[in-house]
Amino acid sequence: MLTIAIAQTAPKLLDVEANFEQVVNLTGRIAADIYLFPELCLSGYAFSSPEEVHGWALHQDNPYSGRLMRLTEEREIALCGGYAEATADGAIYNSAFFIGNGKLLANYRKTHLFYRERQFFTPGNSGFSVVQYLGARFGMMICYDWIYPEAARSLALLGAQVILHPANLVLPYCQRAMFARSVENRVFIATANRVGRETNALSDDLLFTGGSQVVAPDGEYLLTFDDSESAVRSIQIDPSAADNKVLNSFNSLLEDRRPELYVGGVQSP
Amino acid sequence: MLTIAIAQTAPKLLDVEANFEQVVNLTGRIAADIYLFPELCLSGYAFSSPEEVHGWALHQDNPYSGRLMRLTEEREIALCGGYAEATADGAIYNSAFFIGNGKLLANYRKTHLFYRERQFFTPGNSGFSVVQYLGARFGMMICYDWIYPEAARSLALLGAQVILHPANLVLPYCQRAMFARSVENRVFIATANRVGRETNALSDDLLFTGGSQVVAPDGEYLLTFDDSESAVRSIQIDPSAADNKVLNSFNSLLEDRRPELYVGGVQSP
Repeated sequence: MLTIAIAQTAPKLLDVEANFEQVVNLTGRIAADIYLFPELCLSGYAFSSPEEVHGWALHQDNPYSGRLMRLTEEREIALCGGYAEATADGAIYNSAFFIGNGKLLANYRKTHLFYRERQFFTPGNSGFSVVQYLGARFGMMICYDWIYPEAARSLALLGAQVILHPANLVLPYCQRAMFARSVENRVFIATANRVGRETNALSDDLLFTGGSQVVAPDGEYLLTFDDSESAVRSIQIDPSAADNKVLNSFNSLLEDRRPELYVGGVQSP
Repeated sequence: MLTIAIAQTAPKLLDVEANFEQVVNLTGRIAADIYLFPELCLSGYAFSSPEEVHGWALHQDNPYSGRLMRLTEEREIALCGGYAEATADGAIYNSAFFIGNGKLLANYRKTHLFYRERQFFTPGNSGFSVVQYLGARFGMMICYDWIYPEAARSLALLGAQVILHPANLVLPYCQRAMFARSVENRVFIATANRVGRETNALSDDLLFTGGSQVVAPDGEYLLTFDDSESAVRSIQIDPSAADNKVLNSFNSLLEDRRPELYVGGVQSP
């Protein structure tokens, strides 16, 4: 059994120090094995220019991640959340870290960028991957990746039992649609969405929709937040429940796929 | 604009003549351009042996389809529904016909067979395709195909505006999950599910879950049936609404796919 804590927060735009302290403080509020935070939980979301993003982006090797690594080692916990990632070659990705055992276990770069993110970030090049932690297998996707069934499917085919899904959702569709994502892959999906409102110099006025949740492989909503609360709550799950893809004596969900008949797997027609 | 009628019926097991008469009668009950019937609407579902299926399967060119073709010509309507299809080489498929303009516009063979269908039918080899009718583009999938996002995705990538989905659902998941299928592809999905109970010599006791529905590209449930009524109802839709895949000034749903990063498109890893 594994305890996952979901932190539904309202990060302060461009105040990495305050947001970082909030992340650290929230891990002390409740006991859990893994703490999941929203997308871009260290910087906020509504940037006004690429230059601004560059100013607030972090290299993988930065003082905050160093402190988070030490925290995971001392407390024997893991942390997953989003950040603006700067690379040595000058690219900025909308990324998520999965930190545990005192190190970066995995780094995921958002595959499908939404709206103005396309002005500010480079489309992710990491692809989807699965990492072992505490005997379970985890994959990550970020926010708008949800609408592409190929994202969760890729993770399920790679063996993910639990999909960690940091989000900054402004539309209300995802939370409802994750029912389908869970039952079509028989995996757990944990979404940490943010709340609050952000405006910027580009006249964007974004109201985030909260509704963070954990959905089980059978589609049961195990944990749900409302659309405006700032809170951290946890739930115990058995990741091995996601290994049972057998629906009846004739059907095994993923083995029954027939990729030779599918369109669009590798290239659009 | 196009009027689709959904017939939620309880076919009689192994009584093709009665089921055929019901199909014909229902098309006279209400005015529509297209009438959608459940999976295996001519034979019923709960077969007891492959021999029994062979006994009731129909070749594409059979007296019933001939009469349906004439009906579509006289009334200027189209009909879609499921039947057990026998082929010259002795195979039996769980198929769906789309008949209009006095001819078979398309024939689809179910890709993903559920439960005991695997004993009775050959896995479909038609793959997914889209056909034009009345200026709109239609694709078909059958029942359990719903759980594979690759099915509806294939049809959307081939240009389908409306997915016709004959079903014999015994579980309650599909009706709820079609919200995701519609918004992730921005297509209309019309599901005609059956009601009633069937038992057979194999001790199967199947209660069908009704809940036929039409879901719009934005996820709105335009038409819903309850879980037990036998009824035919219609709705007007504008198929061209499915052509708008633009979410905002930066995102176009299908163009933003990144197949080069997806796992499992052609073969499982």
